[in-house]
Amino acid sequence: MKGQDEKNQTKPDVSRPGQLALQLHPYYRGKIEVNPRCVVRDMDDFSIWYTPGVAEPCLEIQKDKGKVYDYTWKWNAIAVVSDGTRVLGLGDIGPEAALPVMEGKALLFKYLGGVDAVPICLGTKDPDEFIRTVKLLEPSFGGINLEDIAQPKCFRILDTLRAEMEIPVWHDDQQGTATVTLAGLMGALRVTGRQLPDVRIAIIGAGAASLACARLILAAGADPGRMVLCDSQGILNRDREELAATHPQKWEMARKTNADGRQGHIPEAMAGADVVIALSKQGPGTILPEWVRAMAADPIVFACANPVPEIWPWEAKAAGAAVVATARSDFPNQVNNSLGFPSIFRGALDVRARTITDEMCIAAAAELAAYAAEKGLSADYILPTMEEWDVYPRVAAAVGIKAVQQGIARLNRTREELLQSARQLIGKARQATRLLMQEHIIPPVPTA
Amino acid sequence: MKGQDEKNQTKPDVSRPGQLALQLHPYYRGKIEVNPRCVVRDMDDFSIWYTPGVAEPCLEIQKDKGKVYDYTWKWNAIAVVSDGTRVLGLGDIGPEAALPVMEGKALLFKYLGGVDAVPICLGTKDPDEFIRTVKLLEPSFGGINLEDIAQPKCFRILDTLRAEMEIPVWHDDQQGTATVTLAGLMGALRVTGRQLPDVRIAIIGAGAASLACARLILAAGADPGRMVLCDSQGILNRDREELAATHPQKWEMARKTNADGRQGHIPEAMAGADVVIALSKQGPGTILPEWVRAMAADPIVFACANPVPEIWPWEAKAAGAAVVATARSDFPNQVNNSLGFPSIFRGALDVRARTITDEMCIAAAAELAAYAAEKGLSADYILPTMEEWDVYPRVAAAVGIKAVQQGIARLNRTREELLQSARQLIGKARQATRLLMQEHIIPPVPTA
Repeated sequence: MKGQDEKNQTKPDVSRPGQLALQLHPYYRGKIEVNPRCVVRDMDDFSIWYTPGVAEPCLEIQKDKGKVYDYTWKWNAIAVVSDGTRVLGLGDIGPEAALPVMEGKALLFKYLGGVDAVPICLGTKDPDEFIRTVKLLEPSFGGINLEDIAQPKCFRILDTLRAEMEIPVWHDDQQGTATVTLAGLMGALRVTGRQLPDVRIAIIGAGAASLACARLILAAGADPGRMVLCDSQGILNRDREELAATHPQKWEMARKTNADGRQGHIPEAMAGADVVIALSKQGPGTILPEWVRAMAADPIVFACANPVPEIWPWEAKAAGAAVVATARSDFPNQVNNSLGFPSIFRGALDVRARTITDEMCIAAAAELAAYAAEKGLSADYILPTMEEWDVYPRVAAAVGIKAVQQGIARLNRTREELLQSARQLIGKARQATRLLMQEHIIPPVPTA
Repeated sequence: MKGQDEKNQTKPDVSRPGQLALQLHPYYRGKIEVNPRCVVRDMDDFSIWYTPGVAEPCLEIQKDKGKVYDYTWKWNAIAVVSDGTRVLGLGDIGPEAALPVMEGKALLFKYLGGVDAVPICLGTKDPDEFIRTVKLLEPSFGGINLEDIAQPKCFRILDTLRAEMEIPVWHDDQQGTATVTLAGLMGALRVTGRQLPDVRIAIIGAGAASLACARLILAAGADPGRMVLCDSQGILNRDREELAATHPQKWEMARKTNADGRQGHIPEAMAGADVVIALSKQGPGTILPEWVRAMAADPIVFACANPVPEIWPWEAKAAGAAVVATARSDFPNQVNNSLGFPSIFRGALDVRARTITDEMCIAAAAELAAYAAEKGLSADYILPTMEEWDVYPRVAAAVGIKAVQQGIARLNRTREELLQSARQLIGKARQATRLLMQEHIIPPVPTA
């Protein structure tokens, strides 16, 4: 009865944002625009910004390529690149249909991270052509955010581009999800009095996000022997030899994890586990309450399928879960990539990092967790929320400092300098937005 | 003596804009930025612009690809693409060193045309790779502006992309220069009481811009028999058979023009001509005053090398020129591409034209000339200036209407509708710039 009441209370109106989106997308006709960053006092200023004056900065860059970061927007500009082959939960809907998502991502990059992001949806499904194209973009951009690319090609695309480009290349569906999940896990472990090396972790789903979570959580200190992954065919173990040929990333995990050689499916993976992290099939019913009951005492349940989690939070709680997290904003403990990518790029760009390492991701996760701990952790607060925007400069600084420590930063900056520049740049983005709305250059939402 | 005085009076300080550019480029760190186009009232709005709401517009576009123009910024977004192989007069300085120019172009596109332009400098010199890459950008952009690409590859790049893409592809160094040159020529012919079909025209230089000028001027009604082109080897004529293999574009002109079979170099090309259009080697001294004296009475001299024209205007005037035009803003009659590309794209985008035809270029030129005629033509005013910004919406409307007439527009719009939308969009860009400067989001120029 109680469960039913709670369900009615918290049942979200899934269709409302979609209705508003259908109404407001054609009203605003896009979510971003290009504006001047420099003064235009009169037409004479174009002799500075264009011919003949512009020849001088051009010649300086020709002499020293690194000066492109000083004389152009490259220091702050990234491309958000997709082929539209795995957009949200919608699958291969094509590059045109993916553009609203990439534009939304660009909006988030600016508003939350002060980063100038350009959405680029490529008209190819061929991974080699994709790789070649992104590499050719390098002179113009300070970083690349890959998005919504089908697996398994997304692994090779990311690995190749990271190896071959001199600017950070990031696949948010892998690294971004993994970073914020790790941050949430850190908070949940503190709430339940656990240590990462000690816990048994079941990861349900073995897509790009799940594999990246597994890798990053291991890099952060989890015990591989106590981790189990489970794909649609069952638990990954050494008997799954077919994976060596069909899916090397899964095969690597099959050999590295699951020291006990567990067999079976989701319930067997979850049995006795302290933590379950599901990034799999929409629920409800993908994870059953009795499987939560069979976990260790005070279990931690991350049910992150979108929009409907693998198990509803109230069901998991009723089955004994001490902490429940989902991907949704209308429940507590949202595991939300937007907590990660804007400030991780902010930090990477501000030190001109050559790449974004696992250690930088772990530093970002630790800073998110530390922020939440300072505010006061609880079962319903294991992670900051997007409203707590003062966490963004802190994450940026943590990421930048880690890059400096690892020797992959082109600029040496102190934590205080990074905090200040991140605050200034993110603050400016928010101020510009307010101003453009206030003066109706961004018109108000029409009254229905 | 008088010539010397005038020279001292008008001698420009060529180095001043360059000094300011070197000081102000690193101060502003880029010339454009990305801002929201839509409201961000609070974090909840991201459920409209990003997940979960954004899925609905995505699905609508999947059903009907054309809706990408309604739901994203594609309707107004173009890419300014270069490989940095022929930047300004600087030559092959590379894609990084070309970025300040492309960013400046993006600034001009917004401020003068209300167009959102993204600078993309590609890290390849291979024309096939360039073509392939630009084609893959098609889902994201409503148009492509090519810039600063070496010849002869620029011809094939433009022709191939125009043929194979469903959005306007424009090479400003070809079509833009040709359009504004034609506009100036129209004005100069009226000032001197001539008709285009009757005049003898000498074109000095046979680079991409010269060839495009020749083609467009012929398309506008000039007599090919009375036109002569001259490259560094001399006048193009039917004896220059080596061109058939080495340079098909020149060979086409060699066969089509010069009915008299003239031989020789610049002076022979200019002898008796009504008009000389030079887009060749920087002067002074590339064109000598005695060659101007040997032209027809009241000759028209376009000396458009940058920054130093083939002959100084005061020299040409002293030698009898009735009208002199250059590429410089500090002399009368500036043949300035910025009068063309922003409003030509504005018009093409506003009717969602599939391409930009010669007829649309000629309509743009005629509108520029008509505007100047209404204001009152004179030997020192054959073209509007950039300050006369009310000409931009008129050119946009003329271009859009021509596209509708030619059946290459996806939208049917009246001249009045096009005028109004162009005025609104260009006005908004200028208003946003003013506002961002006023509130110091764009900081003022530092006091030295």
